[in-house]
Amino acid sequence: MAEELIERTVGVVLYPGFESLDVYGPVEAFGCVPGFFRVLMVADKAGPVVSAQGPRTVADHGFADAPKLDVLLVPGGIGTNDQVGNRTLLDWLVARARDAEVVTSVCSGSWLLAAAGLLDGRRATSNKMFFAGAREHGNGVDWVPKARWVEDGKFVTSSGVSAGTDMALHVVARLAGRDVADNVARAMEYTWETDPENDPFASVWGLA
Amino acid sequence: MAEELIERTVGVVLYPGFESLDVYGPVEAFGCVPGFFRVLMVADKAGPVVSAQGPRTVADHGFADAPKLDVLLVPGGIGTNDQVGNRTLLDWLVARARDAEVVTSVCSGSWLLAAAGLLDGRRATSNKMFFAGAREHGNGVDWVPKARWVEDGKFVTSSGVSAGTDMALHVVARLAGRDVADNVARAMEYTWETDPENDPFASVWGLA
Repeated sequence: MAEELIERTVGVVLYPGFESLDVYGPVEAFGCVPGFFRVLMVADKAGPVVSAQGPRTVADHGFADAPKLDVLLVPGGIGTNDQVGNRTLLDWLVARARDAEVVTSVCSGSWLLAAAGLLDGRRATSNKMFFAGAREHGNGVDWVPKARWVEDGKFVTSSGVSAGTDMALHVVARLAGRDVADNVARAMEYTWETDPENDPFASVWGLA
Repeated sequence: MAEELIERTVGVVLYPGFESLDVYGPVEAFGCVPGFFRVLMVADKAGPVVSAQGPRTVADHGFADAPKLDVLLVPGGIGTNDQVGNRTLLDWLVARARDAEVVTSVCSGSWLLAAAGLLDGRRATSNKMFFAGAREHGNGVDWVPKARWVEDGKFVTSSGVSAGTDMALHVVARLAGRDVADNVARAMEYTWETDPENDPFASVWGLA
């Protein structure tokens, strides 16, 4: 059952070296329910942004001209390393997080939210292969090593890469209703992991 | 164990209304092992191509100037309906399939391979929600209703959307070795369905 029939704008933050599936698992989940969500790509300026895997995605808007974003999504990827010190990006995240209904991250995207100070005093997670990086960039954060995703108020952070798809479906359920999310998962032929605590990769990477 | 340390070029065919995850699940799998695979986006002409979910991906090459493609990947999506009668695309697929080592499709991408005549006399699958469409576009094909993916010689066709990720990891294993594919799946924090016959969505959509 949809709780509110209003269309939210999902803003996906791109930077060079973003991880493809961090972006496009959630894009698939949100983008399959027009009427509930529309998906926009945002970067420092409009135009093509290269992913860690090579293919380029077009940013629809630059930071300055992006409309109100109801849901923010911050992907991870090798490019995160160059962005944790990018004050322009971090300040923009702080400003846009204030006005957003839900702020999400996938993989090392949570390093950026942490570096911006947005996760201080909150529970959050990040990808498991490079979990030390999360601790390094946010020592005021209560990092949860074993979680597919972690929800703390408006902030929903997921573990690595494909965990973002499970997290995004959860956000679809939170904002549009569980039935809608179930239908999307079925159309995607995706076996949605609905339990945020079921994280087989924490032990794979020696964290549990 | 990698069987051959040569870099293959993966050519992903884009057209307006392609399904995002059909493209980017496989892009993630192939694109995470540079040295083994490089991923190129190809469309009728170079430049941005809009997906079914809204975001645009840049085609690196047009059909005419694309280099040799060792692996072809044909995604599905709502746009397939406009392409099944596109003789330019279908002829290009026939020509490029001849020279490719492996030809893959995701979801309704198999309709295009079928419409091009490439699957005649072969076993293949397609997405489950619209399985009737597969039969309509390829009555000389032995369509398999219950399969996550189907491999028949150089042709590897997958079921809907997220099934493409499992199929792509299988192709990574076939061409670069199972250890490489396992490492990619772990880095993606992805629970790879390695059994092509385990298809829970055939019964969801009334096909088994």
